[in-house]
Amino acid sequence: MDVAQVLHMNGGDGDYSYSNNSLLQRKVISMTKPIIDEALAKLYSAMNFPKTLIMADLGCSSGPNTLLVASELVKSVDKIRQKFGNDESPEIQIYLNDLPHNDFNTIFLSVSKFQKNLTNQMVSNSSSPCYISGVPGSFYTRLFLSKSIHFVYSSYSLMWLSRVPKMINTNKNNIYLSTTSPPCVIKAYREQFQSDFLTFLKYRAEEMVSGGRMVLTILGRQSDDPCSKECCYVWDLLATSLKDMVAEGLIEEEKLDSFNIPQYTPNPKEVSNEVEKEGSFVIDCLEVSEVNWDACTDNNLNLSKEDVQGYNMGKCMRAVAEPLVLSHFGDSIIEEVFKRYTDNIKISMSGEKTKLVNVTVSMTRKG
Amino acid sequence: MDVAQVLHMNGGDGDYSYSNNSLLQRKVISMTKPIIDEALAKLYSAMNFPKTLIMADLGCSSGPNTLLVASELVKSVDKIRQKFGNDESPEIQIYLNDLPHNDFNTIFLSVSKFQKNLTNQMVSNSSSPCYISGVPGSFYTRLFLSKSIHFVYSSYSLMWLSRVPKMINTNKNNIYLSTTSPPCVIKAYREQFQSDFLTFLKYRAEEMVSGGRMVLTILGRQSDDPCSKECCYVWDLLATSLKDMVAEGLIEEEKLDSFNIPQYTPNPKEVSNEVEKEGSFVIDCLEVSEVNWDACTDNNLNLSKEDVQGYNMGKCMRAVAEPLVLSHFGDSIIEEVFKRYTDNIKISMSGEKTKLVNVTVSMTRKG
Repeated sequence: MDVAQVLHMNGGDGDYSYSNNSLLQRKVISMTKPIIDEALAKLYSAMNFPKTLIMADLGCSSGPNTLLVASELVKSVDKIRQKFGNDESPEIQIYLNDLPHNDFNTIFLSVSKFQKNLTNQMVSNSSSPCYISGVPGSFYTRLFLSKSIHFVYSSYSLMWLSRVPKMINTNKNNIYLSTTSPPCVIKAYREQFQSDFLTFLKYRAEEMVSGGRMVLTILGRQSDDPCSKECCYVWDLLATSLKDMVAEGLIEEEKLDSFNIPQYTPNPKEVSNEVEKEGSFVIDCLEVSEVNWDACTDNNLNLSKEDVQGYNMGKCMRAVAEPLVLSHFGDSIIEEVFKRYTDNIKISMSGEKTKLVNVTVSMTRKG
Repeated sequence: MDVAQVLHMNGGDGDYSYSNNSLLQRKVISMTKPIIDEALAKLYSAMNFPKTLIMADLGCSSGPNTLLVASELVKSVDKIRQKFGNDESPEIQIYLNDLPHNDFNTIFLSVSKFQKNLTNQMVSNSSSPCYISGVPGSFYTRLFLSKSIHFVYSSYSLMWLSRVPKMINTNKNNIYLSTTSPPCVIKAYREQFQSDFLTFLKYRAEEMVSGGRMVLTILGRQSDDPCSKECCYVWDLLATSLKDMVAEGLIEEEKLDSFNIPQYTPNPKEVSNEVEKEGSFVIDCLEVSEVNWDACTDNNLNLSKEDVQGYNMGKCMRAVAEPLVLSHFGDSIIEEVFKRYTDNIKISMSGEKTKLVNVTVSMTRKG
């Protein structure tokens, strides 16, 4: 099965995925907001206060945060408009994109209420409505008409590769990059990211207007080493659970050896390298930020703090990993895998402060 | 519950509805094709061979015909381009619109295959891709950015009113317009259609570019009399079933009296009157056509011809009427209602040739 399809089989329950874990994503949106605001303000004035703004959220997922992003974009534009003393609000079209298996129906049922709420929340009441549209497809393909998009946003989506990298050697005893991965495996992962991200930039360059802006937040790392703990540890804990089950005869060793997570968490340099190589965009801002794993934590359970954090991070990671594990290993072992994985996360979180690293890049389409 | 919502609660099974009954709709598309082709050819040359065409299918439903319409539009443009000797195909964006309860997920799962098939079917291989996007919302509201749409298509959707008309007197013993309906009921239905269609035209006028074209096929009638048999008979047969059940004590009389179908089937003059009243469009073509009820017939059942036809028309009408009947009368009587209704349709179809009347109008947005 297509990796892209598998990744989004958790569509109906969009509340628990990397890109749409309510609390984590809200935290990321609020951290990225100043960068978005600045990009939109510069876009708005450079375009000479356009009557129409066309925006896209790539990898929008389906859950309470899908329309939260749209809402933040519209409110940001409205504040900027006010600041510039412009009476007339631009009309805004927002394209919500995700893979075809994403649950667009659930998003669409909230659109009418979202539009009403938005009008009430705006600084001014003179604001034009915001038009919402769903676009199914991979962002590693063309999605929109040429030169039609003013602003592109994507959060926690671009670390997903278009496929598991093709490797010459087996990534033995691993399910992701690890200190024990052979050099050719590391090379394959890096090259897959480079190729995918370059494809992404090339297609967005075709779709965006000159002067258009793009803000991307990618799960990444600080280190030069793609096998550093900051990005690999969370998958190491899953690998440990699976290896234990191999040792106990519950999973076949070959099955583990052929399982690899199609993800790559770039550092800022790797992001800027591809942007420069592609050549259509100028980087305005490139930042690294950190979020504690406990940003996933919703504290309404009657458990100790460490257990709550472990439980929530476990739930978050299950939503991300379950479709991949399920399609590779089948459903008979799934409960056991995630019981062990959550236990490993709990133990790890009680021992040390673990963080997710975000790379945020803001760029402008050259004229 | 909102009538619009009820009408589309059959979303998941879109194969059987007025607007998406496979055979009936295919027949209507093929009948309307020459009018669409002409409108697109005039649009394309009047716009001086644009690089981009933005189209909308309003009331697209969800089923095998949803993307068939899109496919016909793209292929038509490609033939026109060839005829004009233009080398470069325009890029085409097609917005698929329906109420938020429509099953967009099912449409979206077919988009990738549709795009691949389309490329293979095109006259030339130089054709640009077609971008598909879903837009949830009632077409009696604004759906798109101002002056952004070149071509609007809608088939078998605009006879649905935005709500059941407000009536001073009860439409006693009827569920729709009938020869026994009080004059004030007939007036209420007519005025609701006029108001809804005027609203539709006003919003489309805002959304369409100057010179943009619109082709609408509406279930309608030939006669001046909105209570004529050609449009009311199909609902009379349902009313008969319900009245029989009232007589047998299975349904309360008051329940029947408060049930009314939110539909109005205009004649060509009523359509052109509203277009002229609204004032933004010029009518290029206004046609009436007929489809036999047996156009709904899929002949793979081991039944007599009359029985097959009755069975299929019954199934078609059940898909249209069931959400309305269910939400008003509850689910306990639903099987009995539609058993009787299908029997009435069978008897009627064996006795006479019954037809659906279509009003098709093609118009241009004034400059």
